[in-house]
Amino acid sequence: MNFKLTLQYDGTDFHGWQMQAGGRTVQGELTRALSLIEGSEVVVHGAGRTDAGVHAEAQVACVTMGRELSPEKFRAAINGNIGRDVRITEVEIVPDDFHARFSARGKSYCYRVFNERIASPFWARYAYHEPRPLNVEAMREAGRLFIGEHDWTAFSSAQTDVRTRVRKVTELSIGERLSARGRGRLVEIHVSADGFLRYMVRSIAGALLATGRGETDERAIERAIESGERILVAATAPAHGLTLVKVHY
Amino acid sequence: MNFKLTLQYDGTDFHGWQMQAGGRTVQGELTRALSLIEGSEVVVHGAGRTDAGVHAEAQVACVTMGRELSPEKFRAAINGNIGRDVRITEVEIVPDDFHARFSARGKSYCYRVFNERIASPFWARYAYHEPRPLNVEAMREAGRLFIGEHDWTAFSSAQTDVRTRVRKVTELSIGERLSARGRGRLVEIHVSADGFLRYMVRSIAGALLATGRGETDERAIERAIESGERILVAATAPAHGLTLVKVHY
Repeated sequence: MNFKLTLQYDGTDFHGWQMQAGGRTVQGELTRALSLIEGSEVVVHGAGRTDAGVHAEAQVACVTMGRELSPEKFRAAINGNIGRDVRITEVEIVPDDFHARFSARGKSYCYRVFNERIASPFWARYAYHEPRPLNVEAMREAGRLFIGEHDWTAFSSAQTDVRTRVRKVTELSIGERLSARGRGRLVEIHVSADGFLRYMVRSIAGALLATGRGETDERAIERAIESGERILVAATAPAHGLTLVKVHY
Repeated sequence: MNFKLTLQYDGTDFHGWQMQAGGRTVQGELTRALSLIEGSEVVVHGAGRTDAGVHAEAQVACVTMGRELSPEKFRAAINGNIGRDVRITEVEIVPDDFHARFSARGKSYCYRVFNERIASPFWARYAYHEPRPLNVEAMREAGRLFIGEHDWTAFSSAQTDVRTRVRKVTELSIGERLSARGRGRLVEIHVSADGFLRYMVRSIAGALLATGRGETDERAIERAIESGERILVAATAPAHGLTLVKVHY
């Protein structure tokens, strides 16, 4: 029986999603709990890897279990066997051909920036602290350049294990709000695409932050997109500001 | 020169405010940093003690330093010498007779409840998880009973080092909102008073939560207030849901 799991995690104390020898990972934690429930080793597939420190409000995973399980009880059993910084919010029975990664049609991320002079202890784990004022209008203007189908070589890691670096960004919007907890301004970069390359959101966020600080501009970003030269764009923004918000099926 | 410090802290990794041998405390952390800046031991007074796990969005402390310091530079120097889970947000030069505790005219607290079936990894540190549905209207009705000047013996610890247990509660209101991060319903109990006894907010929150779950009612709360018998009311709510929001001067 094939199950789709939706889960949240605070990525702070994880070495990312992917299982590895040494170092606590979300996939490792889930695999341990699910294997315990199954009575033998199971394989857990995620919709995508998240790097160390990256959070998820709705990551998706799938797992095939040998017996029938009520989704409600299965969810409670998993939550009882994993750390409190990861929670299964939903369990669904899905057709055998459902696969968390291959069935995914797109993803949405949010990059959060706490934009006040003094950092907030309440956002230290979940948002990047930018003490300098950000020109959000300039960021919004520049943000439009990222919408559409492009080769994102300039905005990804030098990894070589992908066939193509062409991805279609379907949404890029920037929100501003006051945090109810800890009182401070949050700037949130929302990005959706049919797929993402490694470091892609954080590279885009880095370029937009540089734009907001007046250190780069639309022309430089356009050139980077066209030429694919990484050197033209700003530093990759730190992992802890990033949250995987939704996987689209 | 007398300074007023306003500070925020995530109380999770502190053994409360008050300095003690063994165990990291907010007062201890500040005393160490301030003594380092002063070059000799200084005494830091807080507006009030917060228990282990309790947070602060605007705790106030005062300290007398031997030399003139620019508030801006002083603030940066302190922040550079304390953990990231505590931040000085404001430093002001105040008259010599200002005292963080004795000059305070009142305080405001917020007790946060994450009211969804499944806990949120993003609120695990900052809100109490109540998986059962809460009747917020019933909580609001009962909340009115707590406004006014009363002897709060039934809603405080058995501590004996206070002259009187009479305090005046000036505000008790209950808000509901959706968390932007992690998607879930938050119920927030806001309480202001001219002063608080130990465990007072958490006892009131416990009684209101019990009301919201239908386990107690206004009559029982009224009886408890009148009789001063602790046994009549519900359990004290856990520390991590509590945040000191403001000290009034």
